[in-house]
Amino acid sequence: MVERIAIIGAGPSGMAQLRAFEAARESGAEIPEIVCFEKQADWGGQWNYSWRTGIDQHGEPVHSSMYRNLWSNGPKEALEFADYSFDQHFGKPISSYPPRAVLWDYIAGRVEASDVRRFVRFNTIVRWTQETADGFTVASENLADGETTTEHFDRIIVASGHFSFPNVPDFEGLENFTGEVMHAHDFRGAERLAGKRVLMIGASYSAEDIGMQAHKMGAELVTLSYRSHAMGFDWPAGVEELPLAVGFDGSTVTFRDGSVREVDAVVLCTGYLHKYPFLPDSLALSSPNNLYPDGLYKGTVWQGNPNLFYVGAQDQWFTFNMFDAQAWFVRDVILGRIALPDAEDRAADIRHWLAEYAALPDHDSEVVYQANYIRDLIERTDYPMFDLDEVVRIFQSWQHDKQVDIARYRDKTYPSVMTGTMAAVHHTPWLEEMDDSIERYLTPVGTASDSRDDAIDVGTRERGVSAAARVTRPTSRR
Amino acid sequence: MVERIAIIGAGPSGMAQLRAFEAARESGAEIPEIVCFEKQADWGGQWNYSWRTGIDQHGEPVHSSMYRNLWSNGPKEALEFADYSFDQHFGKPISSYPPRAVLWDYIAGRVEASDVRRFVRFNTIVRWTQETADGFTVASENLADGETTTEHFDRIIVASGHFSFPNVPDFEGLENFTGEVMHAHDFRGAERLAGKRVLMIGASYSAEDIGMQAHKMGAELVTLSYRSHAMGFDWPAGVEELPLAVGFDGSTVTFRDGSVREVDAVVLCTGYLHKYPFLPDSLALSSPNNLYPDGLYKGTVWQGNPNLFYVGAQDQWFTFNMFDAQAWFVRDVILGRIALPDAEDRAADIRHWLAEYAALPDHDSEVVYQANYIRDLIERTDYPMFDLDEVVRIFQSWQHDKQVDIARYRDKTYPSVMTGTMAAVHHTPWLEEMDDSIERYLTPVGTASDSRDDAIDVGTRERGVSAAARVTRPTSRR
Repeated sequence: MVERIAIIGAGPSGMAQLRAFEAARESGAEIPEIVCFEKQADWGGQWNYSWRTGIDQHGEPVHSSMYRNLWSNGPKEALEFADYSFDQHFGKPISSYPPRAVLWDYIAGRVEASDVRRFVRFNTIVRWTQETADGFTVASENLADGETTTEHFDRIIVASGHFSFPNVPDFEGLENFTGEVMHAHDFRGAERLAGKRVLMIGASYSAEDIGMQAHKMGAELVTLSYRSHAMGFDWPAGVEELPLAVGFDGSTVTFRDGSVREVDAVVLCTGYLHKYPFLPDSLALSSPNNLYPDGLYKGTVWQGNPNLFYVGAQDQWFTFNMFDAQAWFVRDVILGRIALPDAEDRAADIRHWLAEYAALPDHDSEVVYQANYIRDLIERTDYPMFDLDEVVRIFQSWQHDKQVDIARYRDKTYPSVMTGTMAAVHHTPWLEEMDDSIERYLTPVGTASDSRDDAIDVGTRERGVSAAARVTRPTSRR
Repeated sequence: MVERIAIIGAGPSGMAQLRAFEAARESGAEIPEIVCFEKQADWGGQWNYSWRTGIDQHGEPVHSSMYRNLWSNGPKEALEFADYSFDQHFGKPISSYPPRAVLWDYIAGRVEASDVRRFVRFNTIVRWTQETADGFTVASENLADGETTTEHFDRIIVASGHFSFPNVPDFEGLENFTGEVMHAHDFRGAERLAGKRVLMIGASYSAEDIGMQAHKMGAELVTLSYRSHAMGFDWPAGVEELPLAVGFDGSTVTFRDGSVREVDAVVLCTGYLHKYPFLPDSLALSSPNNLYPDGLYKGTVWQGNPNLFYVGAQDQWFTFNMFDAQAWFVRDVILGRIALPDAEDRAADIRHWLAEYAALPDHDSEVVYQANYIRDLIERTDYPMFDLDEVVRIFQSWQHDKQVDIARYRDKTYPSVMTGTMAAVHHTPWLEEMDDSIERYLTPVGTASDSRDDAIDVGTRERGVSAAARVTRPTSRR
C-alpha cells in the first residue's frame, strides 16, 4: 500500500518538501501519496502580503508578518536554491537585495514549473492530530465551507514555520497608553509613521528593519529599545537606540536608564513563538528560537516519534537552501534511502550538535555552525552541494556592510555561489526607492526621480499575476 | 456514575451556567461534575479589557472586543439578573448606562458569592472535540505550560460567544491604503483619533458607538458608511453617514454615491462570525447573527446531538438575563427535570420559532419575539420570572431616546424591573465624562471639572481588584 504523507504548510519549507518529492519522481522514484495542508489561499507562506492583521477572513490568525515595503535584509546569494538559480528564473542579473514580490516570484517559479500544486489543499487548516497504532489521524477544516475531515497519515511533516505567532510581552502601563500599539507581526507599512515619534521594542531584525522603514518614510524620531544588547549600528540622524522601555503613562515612555520620550506609536519587535496548536504536547516542538531546537535528529526527525518531521524549525541564517537540504533529507528517510539510526544513536547525535552549539563563541561562528549542519544533510542526499564556505563569507561581508552603513547596505552586490553571476547594481538606491513592485524592480529606468511614472508605464498592477513572468519570460501557470 | 459536563467559556453565558448549577446545588440537588474551560486568565469574557489586539500572549486569538471607553449602550435595567439585583450588588442606585468596569463587577459579584470559581480551568483552551459512543472526548491545552489533555465528557455546553471572531471583508484597494485599518474587534480606544478623519464601515452598534467615541474624543470628522440602511440618527456636527465605501486609493476613499473623502483611519465595524474551531462540522453551529439560529431546540439544544448545548448563541436584545433563562433550562434538561421531546417534535418546535421569526414585521417586534422566547424558557424552570413586557417597553423607550439625541441618551434613567429602584442620574453626562473607571463612577463628585483629581483621591487603581467591593461593600473573594 502506498504511504500517505501530510505536509502541514505550503510556505518556503513546505514548497521545498514538495519540490524534493517531485525531484525524486522526475528521476523515476515512486513517491508516496502527498497531501499538503495550507491555510492561506495561496502558497508562499510569509512571502504573501496581505493588508489583514490579527484575524483573517476565516477567523483564523493571519499567518504572514509581511509588510508592504519589505526588501530582503540579507543577500539573495545566501538563500539561492542549488537546483534553480536566480539566472534561470529571471533570465538576467538582478540586485542582491530584492523586494518581497521578486522573492515570492522566485520561490513560486520553481514549483510552478512542475505540477505539485495539485498536492496542496488551500484554505484548509489542520485542527488536531492524534497518534495511532499505525501512524496518525489528522482532523482538518476546509475554511471555505466549514467541512471537517479526519483521515489517516503514515507520516507528518510540519512545515508551518515559526514566525507567525507573535511573542507579545506586557509592559507596565501599556493598557493606558493611548497611541497605536502593535506587534511587528501586524506591521504592514511605515507610510503612516511619517512625522511620528515611534518606539520599537526589540533589538533584532524586526526592530532594525521596521525602524529603518519608519525612518525612510519620514518618521520624526525612531527610538529603538533593547533588553540586553544594543544593535549598535551607526544610526542615521532621527534614529536612536535606548535601553528597555520600562513604563508607559499616557503617551510618555520611561526607559531603564531614566530617559523619557513622548511617542505616538509602539511596535513590539519582540519575536515569535514556536506554536503548533494542531499537535498534542507529545508531538509539539517547544523551543526558543535557536539554531538547534532540542528533540530533532538532524534538525528534522522528531525524537519522540520518528514518523513526525519538522522542516524549517531552526533560527535562520540560511533560509531557502537550508529548507531544501532538510526537505531532501526528510524525503530520503521516508523513501527508505536513508536508514534512521536507533533512538539511542539519534539521541547521541542530537547531544553532539547541541554541545557544539552551546560551545559557539560568537555570532560569526553561528553561521559556520549552520553551514556545517547543512553540509551534513546535503552529503546524505542528491541535493546539489554548493560552496557553503563562500556563503559564510558572504554573510560576514553582509554584516560588515551593515556596520558601515545601515541605510545603504542593500545597495551592495554579491556574486552567485551557484552560477558565478555578479548581481546587478539596482537602478535606484534602497533609501530612495519608494515603489517596491516587481514591475518597477525589473524595468530599467534612468533615474530615481522619474521612478513612479515609469512604474505606471510598465502596466497596471494585477494581483496574483507573476509580473516577472509578464515582463521577462513566458508566463508560468498560476 | 456522576455525569461529567464540559462548559466551554467562562464569559457571561458560561458564568450563568455555573450559577444555574450552583443554585440547584444550594437547594439540595445533586449536580454533575463540571469542568469549565476558559482560555482567558479571568472570567467575564468580553467584559475583560486588554490592550492586546489580534493574537494574545499565548499565541491565541484575543477573545475580547472590549475598548477602554465602553459604556453600556443599552439600559442596565434590560439586562439585570432576576436573582441578583444591581441594588444587592452596589448597595445604592447607580445610573442606567454604566461603564464596562461596573458591569464586569456586577456579573463577577454574583458568581464570586459562591465557590464556582473552582470549576473553571483558566488559561485553558479547547482544541478539538469528537463524538464517541457514550459522549464526547475533548482535547484541551493548558496555555501556561503547553500540556494537552484528552478526556471524556457526557455533555458539552458551548458558551464561547459569537462576538470574538471578526468578520473582515475585503475592499478594493485596501492593500494600498496607508492609514490605520482595523476591525472593531481590535479597537481599544478613540483617544488617538483626536484630530483625525475616521471612517467607520458598518451600520450597527459597533459603528454607532465607536463613531460616537471618536467624536467624543475629538475626531475631526467621523464618516459612517452603510451597506443597506443608514442608522439615520440625528448625528452631531462632525459626524456624517454615507453609503458604502467602494474603493481605496492611498488615503482617498470613494463611496457608492460618488462622494470622496480623505481619511486617516478605517474601522471595519462589519460584525462577527459564529466560529467554533474546536468542533467538527457535525457539532458546529453555522449561522448568521440572528435571533433564532437554526438547529437549536429552544435556542439551546443541538438538534444533531442533544447532549450538546449552546448558551448565548442568539443575537441579543436581552443579554445577561436571557443567558440565565437558557442556562437554567439547559441545567434542568441535564438534571432530568425537563424531558426532551423526541427529534421530530424538537424539529417541529424549531420550525415554529423560525417561522415566527421570519414573519416579524419590524425591529420593535424583534424585541417582543425575544421576550416571548425568554418567557417560554423561564416558565419551564425555577428561574424567577420578571416583567418581560416592561423590559420591552424599556427597549422601546431606549430607541426613542437615541432618536432624540444619540450623544445624550446615556444620561437617561430607568426603574429596575426587578426591584423598582429608580436609577440614579450620574454625576457627569456621558459626553463630558473622560474617566471610565469604577472608582470615579461610584464616588459622588460635585462637578465634571474636578473629575480626574477626585478619581485619584479614591485610591490607586489595582488591576483585578473589585473596586466596587473596595468602595461600597466588603471585598468578595477574587
